[in-house]
Amino acid sequence: MAEIENRKKVSPEEEHPRKAVGLAAKDSSGVLSPFNFSRRNNGDNDVTIKILYCGICHTDLHVIRNEWKNAIYPVVPGHEIVGVVTEIGSNVQKFKVGDKAGVGCLVGSCHSCGGCENDLENYCSKMILTYNSIDIDGTITYGGYSDLIVVREHFVVKFPESLAMDKGAPLLCAGITVYNPMKTFSLDEPGKHLGVVGLGGLGHVAVKFGKAFGMKVTVISTSLNKKDEAIKTLGADAFIVSSDPQQMQAAMGTMDGIINTVSAKHDIVSLIFLLKIQGKMIMVGVPDRPLELPTFPLIMGGRILAGSSIGGLKQTQEMIDFAGKHNITADIELIKADYVNEALNRLAKGDVRYRFVIDVGNTLTPA
Amino acid sequence: MAEIENRKKVSPEEEHPRKAVGLAAKDSSGVLSPFNFSRRNNGDNDVTIKILYCGICHTDLHVIRNEWKNAIYPVVPGHEIVGVVTEIGSNVQKFKVGDKAGVGCLVGSCHSCGGCENDLENYCSKMILTYNSIDIDGTITYGGYSDLIVVREHFVVKFPESLAMDKGAPLLCAGITVYNPMKTFSLDEPGKHLGVVGLGGLGHVAVKFGKAFGMKVTVISTSLNKKDEAIKTLGADAFIVSSDPQQMQAAMGTMDGIINTVSAKHDIVSLIFLLKIQGKMIMVGVPDRPLELPTFPLIMGGRILAGSSIGGLKQTQEMIDFAGKHNITADIELIKADYVNEALNRLAKGDVRYRFVIDVGNTLTPA
Repeated sequence: MAEIENRKKVSPEEEHPRKAVGLAAKDSSGVLSPFNFSRRNNGDNDVTIKILYCGICHTDLHVIRNEWKNAIYPVVPGHEIVGVVTEIGSNVQKFKVGDKAGVGCLVGSCHSCGGCENDLENYCSKMILTYNSIDIDGTITYGGYSDLIVVREHFVVKFPESLAMDKGAPLLCAGITVYNPMKTFSLDEPGKHLGVVGLGGLGHVAVKFGKAFGMKVTVISTSLNKKDEAIKTLGADAFIVSSDPQQMQAAMGTMDGIINTVSAKHDIVSLIFLLKIQGKMIMVGVPDRPLELPTFPLIMGGRILAGSSIGGLKQTQEMIDFAGKHNITADIELIKADYVNEALNRLAKGDVRYRFVIDVGNTLTPA
Repeated sequence: MAEIENRKKVSPEEEHPRKAVGLAAKDSSGVLSPFNFSRRNNGDNDVTIKILYCGICHTDLHVIRNEWKNAIYPVVPGHEIVGVVTEIGSNVQKFKVGDKAGVGCLVGSCHSCGGCENDLENYCSKMILTYNSIDIDGTITYGGYSDLIVVREHFVVKFPESLAMDKGAPLLCAGITVYNPMKTFSLDEPGKHLGVVGLGGLGHVAVKFGKAFGMKVTVISTSLNKKDEAIKTLGADAFIVSSDPQQMQAAMGTMDGIINTVSAKHDIVSLIFLLKIQGKMIMVGVPDRPLELPTFPLIMGGRILAGSSIGGLKQTQEMIDFAGKHNITADIELIKADYVNEALNRLAKGDVRYRFVIDVGNTLTPA
């Protein structure tokens, strides 16, 4: 808190030398408005990126509305950032000016804990998030709903030349969130059967990765009205309505793994029964209330329930390279910066197929 | 149910050609009394075993008292069986008359499902349990609280010459139940840190395997009075009282894995926090009510919660061979057959260190 108090003595516009503009929430209404702030000078290990596109993640909504009770206003959200490198520090190896670059949820970590030493910065207890987090210098981080960002090279990924920058932006959060558990739990092998629970920003990308891995992919959803999209548009092999006992019964014991993207309290027992012996269900959504877990279905099949959160930087680079090679992108609705509040309201209602992306480069104008 | 109805037409004494005596519960009082029944003739693939010792597992208590509502009376319990081979079928390869042999929880499975094909007969949906189960011929299986048993060779393990038969008997259930997850989840490597929750029949054997694997072993228990036993008698490296927040806090994030043997509803969240990043807690006890599972502690550390039930036959042989090599046995109280009801009452109160074993060979007399 000392850092926060210090910070408040200097205005966001003046705490760093380089002028920046963004969209910020000033209070828990979560309404975004133009915001003048500043970025640090490019250090020896830094990369400066002119932001062209930034995806809107559901996390952004939670934070700006202070639903997780951790907002440090003003909040400039955005952690699905794609742009072009405009400056590099003297120690920077991977990038040159003009390169396409991406930044996800992390801009810092301790580099010495068990997580960091194993390329799992995503589990570092001192990780610095891309926005609403306290940076090394004590200032608050501001995210990708802004014109430029300065990030330590370690936390910047090379964005594939072949990949559309707007549709690729959501992969930096949604993509790695599902790719990590698929790799970690060997749910990336041809012929295996993957279940994807929930067809939203995360789920629709999980379907695409699953198909690119050569898997059979079944979408499990509460709403039958997503069946056509799942199968015809996204290429899923099958679709199950989770409330239909007959469909669930017929699929029992058939899945090698399930990526569960649901972030509301729900019945996980019937989902566990979809797994084969020693099958794995990985939770990537965070339900706000505890789930009920009878252990019997886990024990009687040697089954596994795991959690997973985004991914480390090495794996994020691997993920985006794989996406480039297989042309995997998110299905997006590209919006202008001045549409952002309406987009957030629609996102809150689930009214998006499947991700909003802000056209920052062409539409974000100074405050 | 058709098989059960058929069975009732013939008395247990007459349904098979070979006379046997045992101890059976006749109703849900769970009181055991002498019982004359019969065993099948030794078939081509069968091994007949003169039973010398049989461990008393907590499962026996649940079944004879019909707590799981599945008892088929009369029930002859017992699935921790050690004895000597007295007869073999013409196809039997592994055994000769006079060999020491062990039988655990299983005497049959389908041999064609995904589980069976991967040496995981323990997850076969058609597995035949050693007692209180319907055998291939439609008769009910009777367990090891009896003088002899006829078992298909596949489900009999060779019992190491060097291992004490009485103290080794509990390994056929308690031993494999903890050994399986330790092997499956790589919790068998020197220097890793293993937590063992609950110090009973399963837990005390888990401590011994952990130490034999060269691990650091910490026992987590509700009762401080087991500390001396855990450390001085069993060789654990550390002991934590689970109700002490300071001790739990100090151990946060230190364990590679936890074997959780508790079969009552309990707080698993504080246990999950003991795990390192990507650490694994494996449930081998079956709480009768659902546990509360907030997914956040799993997700924020990439942690794993799994279930595990006994083990396949190949691994059971591996386990008992390992126990023979490292002289791992259970700590037992050897009892006479006529003490069995008192032993069961004491077991129900947790009054045993750590397993009762019936001296069947010397003390079981005809009804």
